[in-house]
Amino acid sequence: MEYKTIGIIHSPFTEPQGMPIQPAGAKDIRGTIEIFEPFRKGLKDLDGFSHIILLYQFHRSRGFDLEVVPFLDSERHGVFATRAPKRPNPIGLSVVRLRGVADGVLTIENVDVLDGTPLLDLKPYIPEFDAQTDVRTGWLEQTKKNVSHKKSDDRFK
Amino acid sequence: MEYKTIGIIHSPFTEPQGMPIQPAGAKDIRGTIEIFEPFRKGLKDLDGFSHIILLYQFHRSRGFDLEVVPFLDSERHGVFATRAPKRPNPIGLSVVRLRGVADGVLTIENVDVLDGTPLLDLKPYIPEFDAQTDVRTGWLEQTKKNVSHKKSDDRFK
Repeated sequence: MEYKTIGIIHSPFTEPQGMPIQPAGAKDIRGTIEIFEPFRKGLKDLDGFSHIILLYQFHRSRGFDLEVVPFLDSERHGVFATRAPKRPNPIGLSVVRLRGVADGVLTIENVDVLDGTPLLDLKPYIPEFDAQTDVRTGWLEQTKKNVSHKKSDDRFK
Repeated sequence: MEYKTIGIIHSPFTEPQGMPIQPAGAKDIRGTIEIFEPFRKGLKDLDGFSHIILLYQFHRSRGFDLEVVPFLDSERHGVFATRAPKRPNPIGLSVVRLRGVADGVLTIENVDVLDGTPLLDLKPYIPEFDAQTDVRTGWLEQTKKNVSHKKSDDRFK
């Protein structure tokens, strides 16, 4: 399957090292998304939504490992049980706050992605579809509280 | 960008017409995902998570429209303000309940995808990363309560 870049995400993060590892660690950090001209008509009415789901390419990752030691643990886990960027298909997912849409440029908050990241898709975040209750989170139960201050390093280059 | 199929989703739905339009409309409906052998090592420890995020290809959609009339409304909206399948990059996202993992086969519940759908990626669902509060949902505010009984038709073939 062949996918195209529909826009570019801009953020203050120019290197993988030292950046937040999830939107929860990037609270209030602002960025923009420039949607390419041929796709801008698709943004109609997006401004009614407070949060959007970004699907993007982890463009600085090369290859993949099936088992990884994620940022939030010291044990090896299967890559599909983590959000690590070196995946068989390096597609990233972040839910961010949408602050505005003007002339094909989205202003967003809680940005945990690298500057220059190619955007694949945008979807409205809808709690009735996307939020779950009665959730177990496996190996992350103990460690996930650290996400807001944990920073990335170069292990997934 | 070129992506590969890492597995196949099996569900009771063999045609787009008449199927649920979101996991919320597919409550308790069971399916399975067969992960291809070369990727199975990546499933280690996934069974600790109660919910997973599926990224998959809308393989029965051809082309795309930038404005669409979604299943839940009678007005036209930009495609990025909807979850419609005919998108510039036809990537679908569903959060489903994980019931078990055995021999590379996942048993899942709340399945709203077509039988035979190619899987691109699996991620653990983590409320601290993915769930948002203080959410506005634009044109869906009035109509989203209908998602549990609304069925799809052939408009996005």
